Amino acid sequence: MERLADEARDVILPWFRNPVLGAANKSVDGFDPVTQADRAAEEAMRAVLQKVRPEDGILGEELASKPSQSGFTWIIDPIDGTRGFLAGTPCWGVLIALADENGPFLGVIDQPYISERFLGGLGQAWVSGPQGRKDLRTGDRSDLQDAVLFTTFPEIGTQAERDAFMRVSQTVRLTRYGMDCYAYALLAAGHVDLVIEAGLNTYDIAAPIAVIEAAGGIVTDWQGQPFGESGQVVAAANKALHAQALELLRG
Amino acid sequence: MERLADEARDVILPWFRNPVLGAANKSVDGFDPVTQADRAAEEAMRAVLQKVRPEDGILGEELASKPSQSGFTWIIDPIDGTRGFLAGTPCWGVLIALADENGPFLGVIDQPYISERFLGGLGQAWVSGPQGRKDLRTGDRSDLQDAVLFTTFPEIGTQAERDAFMRVSQTVRLTRYGMDCYAYALLAAGHVDLVIEAGLNTYDIAAPIAVIEAAGGIVTDWQGQPFGESGQVVAAANKALHAQALELLRG
Repeated sequence: MERLADEARDVILPWFRNPVLGAANKSVDGFDPVTQADRAAEEAMRAVLQKVRPEDGILGEELASKPSQSGFTWIIDPIDGTRGFLAGTPCWGVLIALADENGPFLGVIDQPYISERFLGGLGQAWVSGPQGRKDLRTGDRSDLQDAVLFTTFPEIGTQAERDAFMRVSQTVRLTRYGMDCYAYALLAAGHVDLVIEAGLNTYDIAAPIAVIEAAGGIVTDWQGQPFGESGQVVAAANKALHAQALELLRG
Repeated sequence: MERLADEARDVILPWFRNPVLGAANKSVDGFDPVTQADRAAEEAMRAVLQKVRPEDGILGEELASKPSQSGFTWIIDPIDGTRGFLAGTPCWGVLIALADENGPFLGVIDQPYISERFLGGLGQAWVSGPQGRKDLRTGDRSDLQDAVLFTTFPEIGTQAERDAFMRVSQTVRLTRYGMDCYAYALLAAGHVDLVIEAGLNTYDIAAPIAVIEAAGGIVTDWQGQPFGESGQVVAAANKALHAQALELLRG
């Protein structure tokens, strides 16, 4: 998994804050450099898997799924947060998860520009980056009124989903926006207490699920069930916060 | 100015993502570690100025102003984006500006965790960080409909201010939230086209003004006048975008 993340870093970083991104915004010929970087990174990761794990399945954002012959499937989102990437923020990430029939059990959230890697699963949960290597552990604030909540956009999901989100947002101490997958990493590290989103795909959330669960947190849909077709996610630092958030989300 | 920014980095970084921050959120004795880090950094910077520029004035966020005897004043915000700092994001910054009677003419936006420094003024405009050192130049997208707009909170200012902001937000290609002072740095670097905020103080915007102007951009209030008591800011990559944004902000 770390080798895959290294490959993705090498492919993606030359495109980040590259002047060609600005130029392409104006182009009319359909050239989309972020999608190019996204695809090139996924191809690089698939090439590694083809060599070292040829029987595993692959579910990627950009290219066709490959069925699993081993029972294991790699779930890959080369650039989660393409709009943040395009705007030059350091809060997009490379998401890689490994899943079996019970779901993701190992994941990485990698931020190439900061050289920061959050990995969780198989008995490990750590971040390595500018402050060295530290264990990940979710926070222990247990009262929703003290919680720090993140979501990427204030215009979350449908109107009903937005209403549900606002019930939580109006209760917590602080709501912040705009972090893409980085918010899940901060939750795993104990700095953020809740992340609530809607409209997600499996490749957006598989890696965060593994990292957060390995760090002591909980990730479900808004009914308290495993993530699925609803696209809804509530990630919480602990059971007490999760229960309080679910109650408000259900209305 | 770089020496001041180095001092601030040394003082602030040990507090960033420090577990004591989480604990303090629950404390009832008023202990506020972010304010402590903020003050300690301002004191460290003031101590340097006292030695090397004793006749210059100081306007800081945390401590009492010192009048200028030289005509020059240092404008300091040790941690711009304390809520983002508290949540562990890498998008807060140290802001330092040097101003004379015409306003700020040299500024730095420093992000200690990423080791990234955006400096502008006196004929210079550059960023140094993970990708080395690069010149800063604002973008040339000139149509508001193509623009990427940032602001920190969707709940910007008063209702009238929010309505004005929404007129711009509904016109641009993309609106993003939550970057604090980092959004101004991204504008100076050409990745973001507009930043619109309200309720700012001089120490929030003096450094961004110097950096953005040195990189080719424009920063005014919502009437097109120099930043002042309104607290309103519109920062634009170029004159064309600035004019289109002002027209919508005025209603």
